[in-house]
Amino acid sequence: MNEIRRNVPVDEQLQILRRGVVDLVSEDDLRRKLEKGAPLRVKLGADPTRPDLHLGHAVILRKMRQFQDLGHKVIMLIGDFTAMIGDPSGKSKTRPPLTLEQTRQNAGSYLEQCRLILRDDPEVLEIRYNGEWLEPMGYADVIRLASRYTVARIMERDDFKKRFEGGVPIAMHELLYPLTQGYDSVALEADVELGGTDQLFNNLVGRALQRDYAQEPQVVMTLPLLVGLDGAEKMSKSLDNYIGLTDEPHAMFAGLMKVPDPLLDNYFTLLTDLSRERIDELLAGHPVAAHRELAREVVRALHPGADLDAAEARFKAVAKGGIPENLPEVAVPMGELNEEGRISLAKLVVLAGLEPSNGAARKLMQNRGLKLNGEPFTDPQGTLTRDQLSAEGGAVLQKGKDKFARLRLGS
Amino acid sequence: MNEIRRNVPVDEQLQILRRGVVDLVSEDDLRRKLEKGAPLRVKLGADPTRPDLHLGHAVILRKMRQFQDLGHKVIMLIGDFTAMIGDPSGKSKTRPPLTLEQTRQNAGSYLEQCRLILRDDPEVLEIRYNGEWLEPMGYADVIRLASRYTVARIMERDDFKKRFEGGVPIAMHELLYPLTQGYDSVALEADVELGGTDQLFNNLVGRALQRDYAQEPQVVMTLPLLVGLDGAEKMSKSLDNYIGLTDEPHAMFAGLMKVPDPLLDNYFTLLTDLSRERIDELLAGHPVAAHRELAREVVRALHPGADLDAAEARFKAVAKGGIPENLPEVAVPMGELNEEGRISLAKLVVLAGLEPSNGAARKLMQNRGLKLNGEPFTDPQGTLTRDQLSAEGGAVLQKGKDKFARLRLGS
Repeated sequence: MNEIRRNVPVDEQLQILRRGVVDLVSEDDLRRKLEKGAPLRVKLGADPTRPDLHLGHAVILRKMRQFQDLGHKVIMLIGDFTAMIGDPSGKSKTRPPLTLEQTRQNAGSYLEQCRLILRDDPEVLEIRYNGEWLEPMGYADVIRLASRYTVARIMERDDFKKRFEGGVPIAMHELLYPLTQGYDSVALEADVELGGTDQLFNNLVGRALQRDYAQEPQVVMTLPLLVGLDGAEKMSKSLDNYIGLTDEPHAMFAGLMKVPDPLLDNYFTLLTDLSRERIDELLAGHPVAAHRELAREVVRALHPGADLDAAEARFKAVAKGGIPENLPEVAVPMGELNEEGRISLAKLVVLAGLEPSNGAARKLMQNRGLKLNGEPFTDPQGTLTRDQLSAEGGAVLQKGKDKFARLRLGS
Repeated sequence: MNEIRRNVPVDEQLQILRRGVVDLVSEDDLRRKLEKGAPLRVKLGADPTRPDLHLGHAVILRKMRQFQDLGHKVIMLIGDFTAMIGDPSGKSKTRPPLTLEQTRQNAGSYLEQCRLILRDDPEVLEIRYNGEWLEPMGYADVIRLASRYTVARIMERDDFKKRFEGGVPIAMHELLYPLTQGYDSVALEADVELGGTDQLFNNLVGRALQRDYAQEPQVVMTLPLLVGLDGAEKMSKSLDNYIGLTDEPHAMFAGLMKVPDPLLDNYFTLLTDLSRERIDELLAGHPVAAHRELAREVVRALHPGADLDAAEARFKAVAKGGIPENLPEVAVPMGELNEEGRISLAKLVVLAGLEPSNGAARKLMQNRGLKLNGEPFTDPQGTLTRDQLSAEGGAVLQKGKDKFARLRLGS
């Protein structure tokens, strides 16, 4: 891990920090804050209702890491209190209320993934929970907070405006969330708040509220929403166009090799430290070579010490339709075989951990998603014999392109 | 005082309760509630920031009294908690924040005036303070409350709509007040809420919230805003077109004799129990006779046992420009006179309690608002001698039409 560099000249810091940034409100303010020389407090709000991170999150986390590398303190703010309330109107499926236990579990998993990118050093990493200041707030405090902001300014938010004008209901409490989020910045005395471009409005609320609370207003910095592997929508788990932050090296490698060509520049800029010159050079060359470099850079960063050659080799083998080496081995207990010495394929798929239930396994076969020893296997009622499981290589099950398991008869 | 009448037939109750009502949402609901036979809980919100009541308030208080007379329980709800918060944005001059002590003092004075009209009997009068349920509310409770109502429904309120469309700022907390007021109805399990026509929207919020909290929705009943003595604006202290609830019999009598003719019907309907037939008869007769009847009815109700003939006689004497009998007497201490045995008129006006300061007293004279012994006195630097104060009738000061004091030299 590289060393923290302190006292880097302000111009150089700005050059590093501006890379890939969409909105910066304002660069003058950021310069002034940097010129003071003290470490800045850089806030990122985390949503513990969605604990699975992907490369889209990496874009912002990498920016946080750049701040850390320059000696600034980043603050991961877990919205534990807001997550516990959820959407009490029950209208939003994307924001279900969580118990305190779920929230803490999610936050733990969220932070563990963040540590793949962030420095885990208390000097440059602070973890806070907004229950700390929201829990003690009473009715009068909420009224006082709400009095600092006007309806017109809240309704300027794009989605509110569209819904209001289009007659789509907005519940009153939804208007309170941006204020709450803004108040988090007041409570944290944030100097900078990072977010995706979709957070620009909310983070500007924080900037305005800090001014009302006689604080120096935070700098708001937004980063692009990474477009997913479909080349169309922003990366998200629900659209299945994502590469998970904790994907194994070969899977991450395979995903990055599939990035649509027009997005290469974007991915290089946002997910690697390669210089502008080097990126231009790669984009001018063969696309496969560029993809390969992208994949190696990203996998190296997220899996320090991983065998890049092995990851690439496995990706290649799978790409050619072959069966890679070093598959996870699964022992099939003798007792699972029936009186005739047979076992259903569905049961084997479940034992191999490729599907959660026999039903799902049968569906996988019907949908032509399963291979047995490299050949499609589509009979949901199919079985294997004791002999087939005892063959030298065992039986290799493959789900989709790159999920494998080798099954052998156990004791 | 008349007896409480219980078990009055529903149709008769409805006939009494509907008198003078503008909005009734809905009559069917009110009928259903009355048919159950149990006493209804009838809420009226009081604003303890404005403790001086006038005949405009009497319109609603009389309706509350009608409910009491039929055995229903009226609830005077003092917004002590909301008054303490006031308008934290500091934008509204009409809603200054009060200390708890001021609020309690105001509420005491407010309730004392209400008792001029209401039965002071715990069986039919309940006094509550909204701090009881608002004080313990936390951030999460406010969010849950706000989630029950949509922005669009709140913005339907006429003044919000106009301000929003006209670009006049609405602070966020202002949207929370109607919800809070509505929640008061939930906390009180109100069956009926009374208010002026300007409260229709707020009280309908309570009706909607009760439904969301699985309560039977309250009936909302509004009464007209009484037009003041100027015949144009609603009665209000700040417009000086009012008759105070605690005005003395002769002053109240004088005020009612000045009611513009076109408002007579309105005043009779809203402030007396006279039958429709009797009102029509009076309106068909001489206006002075009608005014006289109005004045006697209202003064009798608010000053039970007062000498109506004396009040009328005094009104008449003043109307003719004479000096009435039985004026308040004020003793002027010898020590207040200067070395030449003189005292300024301004000082006398203050001693008589007609103005709060010498400056205000001088202004009164400049504005030709002061008479001395029946003659205008307009010299702000004027003085009286010891002899003038020692004359047999003393010195009679008169401010405006009917405020008098008789000053004599004291010991």
